[in-house]
Amino acid sequence: MTRLLVLHGPNLNRLGLRETDIYGTLTLDQINDRLRQYAAAKGISVHPVQSNHEGELIDQLHHAQTTYQGVVFNPAGYTHTSVALRDAVAAIDLPVVEVHLSNISGREDFRRVSLIAPVCAGQISGFGWRSYLLGIEAVLGCLHEG
Amino acid sequence: MTRLLVLHGPNLNRLGLRETDIYGTLTLDQINDRLRQYAAAKGISVHPVQSNHEGELIDQLHHAQTTYQGVVFNPAGYTHTSVALRDAVAAIDLPVVEVHLSNISGREDFRRVSLIAPVCAGQISGFGWRSYLLGIEAVLGCLHEG
Amino acid sequence: MTRLLVLHGPNLNRLGLRETDIYGTLTLDQINDRLRQYAAAKGISVHPVQSNHEGELIDQLHHAQTTYQGVVFNPAGYTHTSVALRDAVAAIDLPVVEVHLSNISGREDFRRVSLIAPVCAGQISGFGWRSYLLGIEAVLGCLHEG
Amino acid sequence: MTRLLVLHGPNLNRLGLRETDIYGTLTLDQINDRLRQYAAAKGISVHPVQSNHEGELIDQLHHAQTTYQGVVFNPAGYTHTSVALRDAVAAIDLPVVEVHLSNISGREDFRRVSLIAPVCAGQISGFGWRSYLLGIEAVLGCLHEG
Amino acid sequence: MTRLLVLHGPNLNRLGLRETDIYGTLTLDQINDRLRQYAAAKGISVHPVQSNHEGELIDQLHHAQTTYQGVVFNPAGYTHTSVALRDAVAAIDLPVVEVHLSNISGREDFRRVSLIAPVCAGQISGFGWRSYLLGIEAVLGCLHEG
Amino acid sequence: MTRLLVLHGPNLNRLGLRETDIYGTLTLDQINDRLRQYAAAKGISVHPVQSNHEGELIDQLHHAQTTYQGVVFNPAGYTHTSVALRDAVAAIDLPVVEVHLSNISGREDFRRVSLIAPVCAGQISGFGWRSYLLGIEAVLGCLHEG
Amino acid sequence: MTRLLVLHGPNLNRLGLRETDIYGTLTLDQINDRLRQYAAAKGISVHPVQSNHEGELIDQLHHAQTTYQGVVFNPAGYTHTSVALRDAVAAIDLPVVEVHLSNISGREDFRRVSLIAPVCAGQISGFGWRSYLLGIEAVLGCLHEG
Amino acid sequence: MTRLLVLHGPNLNRLGLRETDIYGTLTLDQINDRLRQYAAAKGISVHPVQSNHEGELIDQLHHAQTTYQGVVFNPAGYTHTSVALRDAVAAIDLPVVEVHLSNISGREDFRRVSLIAPVCAGQISGFGWRSYLLGIEAVLGCLHEG
Amino acid sequence: MTRLLVLHGPNLNRLGLRETDIYGTLTLDQINDRLRQYAAAKGISVHPVQSNHEGELIDQLHHAQTTYQGVVFNPAGYTHTSVALRDAVAAIDLPVVEVHLSNISGREDFRRVSLIAPVCAGQISGFGWRSYLLGIEAVLGCLHEG
Amino acid sequence: MTRLLVLHGPNLNRLGLRETDIYGTLTLDQINDRLRQYAAAKGISVHPVQSNHEGELIDQLHHAQTTYQGVVFNPAGYTHTSVALRDAVAAIDLPVVEVHLSNISGREDFRRVSLIAPVCAGQISGFGWRSYLLGIEAVLGCLHEG
Amino acid sequence: MTRLLVLHGPNLNRLGLRETDIYGTLTLDQINDRLRQYAAAKGISVHPVQSNHEGELIDQLHHAQTTYQGVVFNPAGYTHTSVALRDAVAAIDLPVVEVHLSNISGREDFRRVSLIAPVCAGQISGFGWRSYLLGIEAVLGCLHEG
Amino acid sequence: MTRLLVLHGPNLNRLGLRETDIYGTLTLDQINDRLRQYAAAKGISVHPVQSNHEGELIDQLHHAQTTYQGVVFNPAGYTHTSVALRDAVAAIDLPVVEVHLSNISGREDFRRVSLIAPVCAGQISGFGWRSYLLGIEAVLGCLHEG
Repeated sequence: MTRLLVLHGPNLNRLGLRETDIYGTLTLDQINDRLRQYAAAKGISVHPVQSNHEGELIDQLHHAQTTYQGVVFNPAGYTHTSVALRDAVAAIDLPVVEVHLSNISGREDFRRVSLIAPVCAGQISGFGWRSYLLGIEAVLGCLHEG
Repeated sequence: MTRLLVLHGPNLNRLGLRETDIYGTLTLDQINDRLRQYAAAKGISVHPVQSNHEGELIDQLHHAQTTYQGVVFNPAGYTHTSVALRDAVAAIDLPVVEVHLSNISGREDFRRVSLIAPVCAGQISGFGWRSYLLGIEAVLGCLHEG
Repeated sequence: MTRLLVLHGPNLNRLGLRETDIYGTLTLDQINDRLRQYAAAKGISVHPVQSNHEGELIDQLHHAQTTYQGVVFNPAGYTHTSVALRDAVAAIDLPVVEVHLSNISGREDFRRVSLIAPVCAGQISGFGWRSYLLGIEAVLGCLHEG
Repeated sequence: MTRLLVLHGPNLNRLGLRETDIYGTLTLDQINDRLRQYAAAKGISVHPVQSNHEGELIDQLHHAQTTYQGVVFNPAGYTHTSVALRDAVAAIDLPVVEVHLSNISGREDFRRVSLIAPVCAGQISGFGWRSYLLGIEAVLGCLHEG
Repeated sequence: MTRLLVLHGPNLNRLGLRETDIYGTLTLDQINDRLRQYAAAKGISVHPVQSNHEGELIDQLHHAQTTYQGVVFNPAGYTHTSVALRDAVAAIDLPVVEVHLSNISGREDFRRVSLIAPVCAGQISGFGWRSYLLGIEAVLGCLHEG
Repeated sequence: MTRLLVLHGPNLNRLGLRETDIYGTLTLDQINDRLRQYAAAKGISVHPVQSNHEGELIDQLHHAQTTYQGVVFNPAGYTHTSVALRDAVAAIDLPVVEVHLSNISGREDFRRVSLIAPVCAGQISGFGWRSYLLGIEAVLGCLHEG
Repeated sequence: MTRLLVLHGPNLNRLGLRETDIYGTLTLDQINDRLRQYAAAKGISVHPVQSNHEGELIDQLHHAQTTYQGVVFNPAGYTHTSVALRDAVAAIDLPVVEVHLSNISGREDFRRVSLIAPVCAGQISGFGWRSYLLGIEAVLGCLHEG
Repeated sequence: MTRLLVLHGPNLNRLGLRETDIYGTLTLDQINDRLRQYAAAKGISVHPVQSNHEGELIDQLHHAQTTYQGVVFNPAGYTHTSVALRDAVAAIDLPVVEVHLSNISGREDFRRVSLIAPVCAGQISGFGWRSYLLGIEAVLGCLHEG
Repeated sequence: MTRLLVLHGPNLNRLGLRETDIYGTLTLDQINDRLRQYAAAKGISVHPVQSNHEGELIDQLHHAQTTYQGVVFNPAGYTHTSVALRDAVAAIDLPVVEVHLSNISGREDFRRVSLIAPVCAGQISGFGWRSYLLGIEAVLGCLHEG
Repeated sequence: MTRLLVLHGPNLNRLGLRETDIYGTLTLDQINDRLRQYAAAKGISVHPVQSNHEGELIDQLHHAQTTYQGVVFNPAGYTHTSVALRDAVAAIDLPVVEVHLSNISGREDFRRVSLIAPVCAGQISGFGWRSYLLGIEAVLGCLHEG
Repeated sequence: MTRLLVLHGPNLNRLGLRETDIYGTLTLDQINDRLRQYAAAKGISVHPVQSNHEGELIDQLHHAQTTYQGVVFNPAGYTHTSVALRDAVAAIDLPVVEVHLSNISGREDFRRVSLIAPVCAGQISGFGWRSYLLGIEAVLGCLHEG
Repeated sequence: MTRLLVLHGPNLNRLGLRETDIYGTLTLDQINDRLRQYAAAKGISVHPVQSNHEGELIDQLHHAQTTYQGVVFNPAGYTHTSVALRDAVAAIDLPVVEVHLSNISGREDFRRVSLIAPVCAGQISGFGWRSYLLGIEAVLGCLHEG
């Protein structure tokens, strides 16, 4: 059975509580529930983890190598500043898809470039919680293509 | 019945003929066939158009307003240089999703920033022909959310 | 009788339909009517042409050499990206005045610099449809000064 | 009766005496006379003031609030360096139109961007002393539109 | 009773031990004691927390939402590099005031711009341990104004 | 008795009249009154001066050397452009604290860097008229520390 | 028999009519005649095409794949702005040599870098109409080397 | 007996498992063993610590002050982004030598500049696991020179 | 008899009072005395003027046209920021030599480029009060050469 | 008889020995032989000189003025860094054509701009040893045109 | 017997005579003596050469190919400006290690990036004359690894 | 007797032969004669040396330490590119004054900044051959001041 890690970066535990015009009104728990249902309907499983700690996110990516077949990763605020997370993605041999709730190309200048996306399979941004659904589909596509 | 425009930008008529390591081995006709089948299975229709002419792409976007419910748009080489196409997307009231076959964040510097994405609903890049499938799903998600 | 070309660039055929807070509520036809009336009252004629095609705009500028005494030109989205249009203005021997409906200096960074204005007689921006009226007056001033 | 301030920035008192290839051969007095005649013919009045002092120009703009209905402003060398003048324009509730004798987009790099234009109604450059005439018309257009 | 979090960022546990010409000779404990005394005299309480971990600082900010009425925050070395901390400040609904012991505008170039200050209520820098006192006053001012 | 100069830069004479969402609704006179009361309660005196003239502000700073024990200085629009004011602060031997009503780090790019702050004792921004109160406290702290 | 496409970009139809100090006094027809004669003397044929339309130039490059053995290409004003033309050159399997009449390295800054040259066999600039002759020789050299 | 901390930054626990063309085929344990043997032969001891957590690395550096005589530090992905680690090195009074397995000057642009090296004794890069050996020698040289 | 204006810019009235390590220990009066003696010995006269007001400096330059044969000008802090002073120098027909007490190329980055020097006859910097002597010689050389 | 200097810059004496994928397999002697044969067949003579010394290359260019009718110059690594060589080319009155074996526009960023080309007649790059042949033809064309 | 070239770049013949706080008090002869002794003790030989001439350094590197097994190279002031030296290192097939006496990352901005290091085996900086010792060890390591 | 080295950089041996509008019509010999006469009249001696070789200029500067009391140095094209010459000036303990015939601040961008001037006593530019006279005076002033 295909198992995917859904890795949520910093501050995503605050979803639905603040800045709902940017990130939407769903809480992280509600999003995770929807992702689990969606996965179950497809016969796969998703395992959401959230951390505000860059080091913890690196550890999770390393750990994913032996536990999951792919990763849907929202690096949030670390997207634009973390070479270490980029290296962590490059250091594992799994399809990793970067997702964002908001359309980062239309926000502040410093959010326009991702340090991590170049070593991911691809990037999806702008579709709210549905970005995760598309991310799951994208990882499955990568696995399917081999 | 939901009707979507799939708008292919410059040089995509050469897909499968050159640079297959970057863009894949499928021809544009083969991709379009797969998109039509995928759409039919969902009970919607997709209408692929390709042009190498920036002006023609603008005309098509304007025309879409009265003919389609959404657009999946691969601006290809115009992604990084065309303010006019950006303005064309902003000048219509439809969900437009920007898609790319290759992971543009991992290529030449001049391909990293899209002038068009900020006025689209969102952006998807890096999944080969499947980027279009994800683009269709993303447009449908936008329509569903209202 | 003095004959002026009024050349409208990309997306201006959508005036009055979208983004009316930026560009105003008049349609292109309404603006053209006002310009024709204004010209008639002054005993000159204006000839509006609109195209979304960069190449067509270049052709029109070349053609103007033998047909008109001056040009009022709104390059719209091509203002900031087209060396080819700049060269087209430089390649004819007519007064060309660049006009913009919105105050481009107060919008996105990429709209602040015009590649075309340096080879025009001058530039007028920010006065809505009246920018065209001022443009006509400016071309007439150039012709008057010799 | 509509009263407009015509505010001339630094060094414009030297018009017609030096660099006549760039700025023309008319002296400031000659230009002011033409503007007064033009205004009289339209049934309005214009009131020219020139100063080389940034602070004096700020004072004049503040003073304009209670004395004039609009301002035609040539900030000359302060155009590109003065945040204080920008703030002064923003601090009054009158239409202010920025004008330049020369086509500043075609000169040295440091003259290409105006700090002041973004908070003006619009900008006119390149038409010699006629830029002021167009500026008067532009202010009147703003007043007419409300 | 008003309760404020005083959040100290990385390396501030080394205060008074090294680089005393830049940061002063007081240890963090000595500063915290002075802040507690100052607060007590005003009838409020301050609660100092120090961490070298970016993730821990994010957690503390989130936690502050339900425990404190405001935050005095010295992000130290994270000031200039952490989008994640910026997002954490934006994700809570409390007045946060950024403080620095040294005058960061007069040090290395990379210390001149703060990624976090734009989403804080304001910034205070350069007054040594007294920056914290001013920070407390500033938070109280924000609370007072409502 | 401690005497402080409170030096207000360009356009601050317009406080409370325009852009009240940015700068607040108090007029400069009202702010000065509050500062005088605050000072009187502490047994010191403050002496407010406002000028739109850069040269006048320089003169005032020079003059302060022999008349005051410290300066609270809001350079407003000159903050970002005036090397001359920077040199004036460096040319006197008094604690000078730079203050701003608005949070300048969160506004236009050109407002983010202060040329003057590096030679001041420190900088305070974002707390409206209370920034001046904090500035007075900061100057007193500097005097107290010796 | 070796057949070469000579592809002329925007505004080259105006050669000999304007800016003759930069581009020379020969018209495009005269240049084409000389190229045909030169080619005939070598036992090959050249086929000149000119267009002001970026899309048409892309179409011509695609078409060249099946019709010609090589391309001499003067992209003129599109040299510096067109990623789409770059991609078109990369999308065909023919030697393409970029030529310029003027020495573009000695003109305006924006003309110094070519987006297209990196995917061409090489670049020749500065020798007037003879740049085309050298371009023909260069393409023949590429074909000869295999 | 001289005791040195060998501090390994993020992702170095993955050495030998991925990207072996860049970082070599030895695992971190194998490298540490070699370092311990090398140290033992010289009559000193080395104590390797690895962490993916920026905060943990800061804590280790602080801790080193009282436990070790010097530090060989490979900050890996934090090299280019961490002001906090720079400040941590500056906050202790020990010779710290920055080492890198790969030649960082020959890789991506963002890896070329180290924020940390300026406050270290020096930097060594490009010699694979032997960079650590050289780092040990360099620290010993610093200690020897006093 | 040759008459030269020696124009001192902002803060130079504070010479000898502060920052004597950079600017020397002579007061402005002492320097002016030395210049007058030096001039008298050469049979010419120098007329020193100092102002902290940019506008006043512009006025003085304009005034010099009809009163002096040349100008030795130390624009001090306005050197790097004043387009208006540059235009004032360009607006008169006299040799103007820019001088600086300190070696501005070796100080802060923002002091390295002069906006004014390009329109002066030349620039002299770094020789303390002797820079003025050299400036007088340089102006005389210009007058001598015609 | 027409005599041309063929001036080879630094490291070209190593041609054919290393980096043959970039520069080709011919040695410098072999290239020079081909150039001499080509010249002889045209009834002219070429005189190859190679030096790794910038000063020697300058001397050679100066010397060429009285000895040769034109120069084919490959400045190699000095292309991008030598203002002195640029000045040397500008200091002689001969047609100088810059040539490069490799297509420098498609290599490292620092190789993209030539400091020397703007003062040459033109530039040819990318055709291996044949770039020299084209260079000879280009110089002859310049001489022929007068 | 292993023979290494130790190549000293410009101004290193002045070591110990000036700027001893940056470069140390040893003269070049003293350093060379220490290196020869160190080498002798290891059973290898080192051959120091110093030149202020860029071309001579290039010649020496070329010559090293047939005479030495490796190079320890301190390019000194040419480190940051010489593409020609970079190409010379790339043009030989020997391990070259770049060394610096001072910690170049902590000095002026223009010293932070090396043009030469990317084509060397690696770089060592900051350890005074011991940088050469480490450089010898590093070259030997490269030779040992094969 | 005071002895000064007058060191002329690259291409100055071509003075008076080309580009006389920029550099004047005097040959280097004529300038040197005038300098010798000027020096003789003052009871000092000047010793002119010219070289196109950067390394030779460095050698000359080193040699000057033991032979001359000061240096007037025109680095010409090396001014803007040579860190090695900068270091050579810093490596000797003599007053060195940088001089330029032309006003380098008013020429191409790459001539505006001098790498060498920051370590010289000062800089003089724009006065043709008289810049050398002023340079001699400046060196004497430095010697006089001690």
